[in-house]
Amino acid sequence: MRKVFQAELQHVGEELIQIATLVKEALERASNAFLETDIQEAEEVISNDARIDFMQNELDERSIDILALQGPVASDLRMIVGALRMSSSLERMGDLARHVAQVARMRYPAPVLPDSITPIFTEIIELDKKIIDSVIALLETRELSHAQDIAKHKVRINELHVEVFNRMAADDWDHPAQTTVDVTLASRYLERFGDHGVSVARKVTYLVTGDWNAVPQSL
Amino acid sequence: MRKVFQAELQHVGEELIQIATLVKEALERASNAFLETDIQEAEEVISNDARIDFMQNELDERSIDILALQGPVASDLRMIVGALRMSSSLERMGDLARHVAQVARMRYPAPVLPDSITPIFTEIIELDKKIIDSVIALLETRELSHAQDIAKHKVRINELHVEVFNRMAADDWDHPAQTTVDVTLASRYLERFGDHGVSVARKVTYLVTGDWNAVPQSL
Repeated sequence: MRKVFQAELQHVGEELIQIATLVKEALERASNAFLETDIQEAEEVISNDARIDFMQNELDERSIDILALQGPVASDLRMIVGALRMSSSLERMGDLARHVAQVARMRYPAPVLPDSITPIFTEIIELDKKIIDSVIALLETRELSHAQDIAKHKVRINELHVEVFNRMAADDWDHPAQTTVDVTLASRYLERFGDHGVSVARKVTYLVTGDWNAVPQSL
Repeated sequence: MRKVFQAELQHVGEELIQIATLVKEALERASNAFLETDIQEAEEVISNDARIDFMQNELDERSIDILALQGPVASDLRMIVGALRMSSSLERMGDLARHVAQVARMRYPAPVLPDSITPIFTEIIELDKKIIDSVIALLETRELSHAQDIAKHKVRINELHVEVFNRMAADDWDHPAQTTVDVTLASRYLERFGDHGVSVARKVTYLVTGDWNAVPQSL
């Protein structure tokens, strides 16, 4: 019985990694759509998002079955409840990548970004990519240095997010309101993407240490 | 044992209603801050949000204790897992009300909105208020007509959200970029507030009917 249970827990962990890997792919494609005006990539992200949603549902159902059939306690119980939470965060990260792709599709064939602000978004997206890479590494290894990396990347994203808003508030920002709307939304989506990465990092840190007090303030 | 368990389940249900009631208050105050340029109300929403977060944590801990100590199955298990999900949605609605208050505080003493767009936001906020009222009624009564009301209000919010974007894209929108940024974010926050209401409605509908197929497409 215990052996079956451990195999099931492991399966849940593997499914989380699979979902995170789909999110990574979605972000990479959304990035191409958004920064390179690639409509094909935008369409792929948008249509593939249903797969992430489906996998999340499956994982949730499996987790609830484990709760019902195995009645886990202590750290096993926390692990299952944590998986339910983490799957929500990952699903949401997939949605946010889709939203970025949708902005790109809406403006196609025009680029979303004015040239002046592209380098900031390039850096934000690179950081979000590092975050999802670290999420995958954290889920695979449970090595808490990855959680710290995620927190560090998010701090930098926050600075860049503020910088985007400063640029738009500056006197020399003379772009149409439509561009301001798009830039505002895209910056918000990419900033939230990082937040959900931090949520996963917090959750894993808690599961590994078993103590909320061991979770750094930065997470 | 069964009696204790039922009392605990009921307690979880009551705590959800308490959190939803705090969210209702947060939205009302955020609305005064945002529409009436009331800085005092903005400060209240921002400082009170920690209470919602605290209550969510408490409810989550209690739910996990119930899972560990009682090992509920079937509909009781679904109820507890559903409560974990609903508390997340409610906590997020509190955050979004806080974000709206923060936009108001940032612009104070100037109003956030140009007069021309105020009626649209007034209607969106009224609908969000109806949504949180219906969420509370739904949690209290489990009467599914409230879930349908929530879905209906959200459809209208979506239309108004698009209307906000249309106004900003129109030729006669000649407001500073800062205003465009604020209006974009506020509209997004208020639209997301409604989404989380719909999530709660979906969850309760599922818990009452015990069947995802019984949850209307509109939810």
